Amino acid sequence: MKTATRAVSSLTSVRIAYFGPQGTFTEQAARALAPGEDLTPFETVRLALAAVRDGAADAACIPIENSVEGVVPATLDGLSDDAPLVAVAEAILPIQFSVLTRPGGGDLRTVASHPHALAQVREWLEANLPDATPVAASSTAAAAVAVVAGEFDAAVCAPVAIEHYPLAELATGIADVGEAQTRFLLVRRPGELPAPTGADRTSIVAAAENRTGTLAQLLSELANRAINLIRLDARPVRDSFGEYRFFIDFEGHVTEPRIVDALTGLRRRCHLRFLGSHPRADRLPATIEAGAGNQDFLDAQSWVDAVLKGTDA
Amino acid sequence: MKTATRAVSSLTSVRIAYFGPQGTFTEQAARALAPGEDLTPFETVRLALAAVRDGAADAACIPIENSVEGVVPATLDGLSDDAPLVAVAEAILPIQFSVLTRPGGGDLRTVASHPHALAQVREWLEANLPDATPVAASSTAAAAVAVVAGEFDAAVCAPVAIEHYPLAELATGIADVGEAQTRFLLVRRPGELPAPTGADRTSIVAAAENRTGTLAQLLSELANRAINLIRLDARPVRDSFGEYRFFIDFEGHVTEPRIVDALTGLRRRCHLRFLGSHPRADRLPATIEAGAGNQDFLDAQSWVDAVLKGTDA
Repeated sequence: MKTATRAVSSLTSVRIAYFGPQGTFTEQAARALAPGEDLTPFETVRLALAAVRDGAADAACIPIENSVEGVVPATLDGLSDDAPLVAVAEAILPIQFSVLTRPGGGDLRTVASHPHALAQVREWLEANLPDATPVAASSTAAAAVAVVAGEFDAAVCAPVAIEHYPLAELATGIADVGEAQTRFLLVRRPGELPAPTGADRTSIVAAAENRTGTLAQLLSELANRAINLIRLDARPVRDSFGEYRFFIDFEGHVTEPRIVDALTGLRRRCHLRFLGSHPRADRLPATIEAGAGNQDFLDAQSWVDAVLKGTDA
Repeated sequence: MKTATRAVSSLTSVRIAYFGPQGTFTEQAARALAPGEDLTPFETVRLALAAVRDGAADAACIPIENSVEGVVPATLDGLSDDAPLVAVAEAILPIQFSVLTRPGGGDLRTVASHPHALAQVREWLEANLPDATPVAASSTAAAAVAVVAGEFDAAVCAPVAIEHYPLAELATGIADVGEAQTRFLLVRRPGELPAPTGADRTSIVAAAENRTGTLAQLLSELANRAINLIRLDARPVRDSFGEYRFFIDFEGHVTEPRIVDALTGLRRRCHLRFLGSHPRADRLPATIEAGAGNQDFLDAQSWVDAVLKGTDA
């Protein structure tokens, strides 16, 4: 995350928007991606992105995918619609919850949280608070607010919530599935790119014609250059089934010759939007196959140049 | 949906499980897919599928994808884990909501629903019920129950909910995005396949090694046979990022020679699970390119057979 921090340090004392409210996992990710920065919550992903687009904020922290719930549709749509934004850093947080109650408060008859959070700690609640009725709230933080107000007795929250609300921690680090994770992005208006590290992720959106074999062709542009796919998502265009946009993440950085070559090949086949090149949070280095390294691409170009000049054949 | 109905008619007077509670969109889809059948709600997608697996139900109706919210992760995971189940029919419902209140009830100060439903009618609520505070419930039907109990003043529900609860319809057919749709499946234990119609969907799950170019190779097996992809989803295996299963839907029916050829090619490259071949709800006929029709595949096989027999060359 070294480069991520560096990418943000030039923003000192300017605003980072995040998908709020305060006390959620996204705030926790924003603190990791922009330590010491002034963080401002926005009610929706789209509003956080709009704040960056219109210059009210210099960057936004938003969730992009959860290993249990899948991608965050509002984020994919928000990045592919309207003016371009690019990701400059990512963070992956393990999803574990705290249970917060009023200090010294009596019986726990109700436990509130967002339905997704309740689903992820159901077994823990059955084993540890069998008499508490689960109640849906609009967010984990809204559940904490309702407990403070005395509406419910306990809230299932992001661990950071304890810093915002006058509540006591009954338990923390709980989750039925031990390995659940959420990945978050820090996005900015297009500008200076983070430096390549050898362990980078490049993201694009491809809008291709709905023809047989289109997606196979696009992925072959990467496979033929031995560029490893990290993930792929298809999102319907205009909220109806039939026409899709493809969100494609692959290893490498847009400043590498092998990636430039692939993007050029892809651009000939479809409309593309660049969503950023930045260090991977898991620091997994890119796979480079024999004959597909950056020097191989440069050497091949030099040879063709020499052929054109008549100095080699 | 003619074939869909036929596929179910042999189940007369046996139980169809569906993802409940009563009064949701899934019940509405179950009625369309299994008209006149005995429908039983289950609390989760996984429990509805388990009822089919253990023989307590003969089929289950579950949501698979929403054009706004994306795929339903619980359904993808539920179909790829445990004993195989196959889809025999699908239904696509436009997602429009009703607003239900207590008959003759006074001021509307609160309006409850599942957070996804509230998100999809937010503009309507702001324009028509600006003084009502939105409140999260665990499902659209749970919101109706809470209105009956007097906890909240209005509920945003599936239109079918009015048949289950003693409430009045304040408005119906509302949705901020006019074209939102959800697709539902009717799944059974493996057995007799629905007949091919020329407008079919075949679904598989592919678990391939995480190597560069794997997905491009799999999709090329379809593209090389001019088989049109309908959709593709990547789901993390074991709830962590890094290893993925691919849910691949394409045009055609497993009884067609061109589809048999493609499945055989795919099976050589990866582990496959067959998730069903059934008529498409949108009745879009399969695209068949020159040289890639079923007769072309049969003719090619005949020629090779003749070469082997020494009767042609």
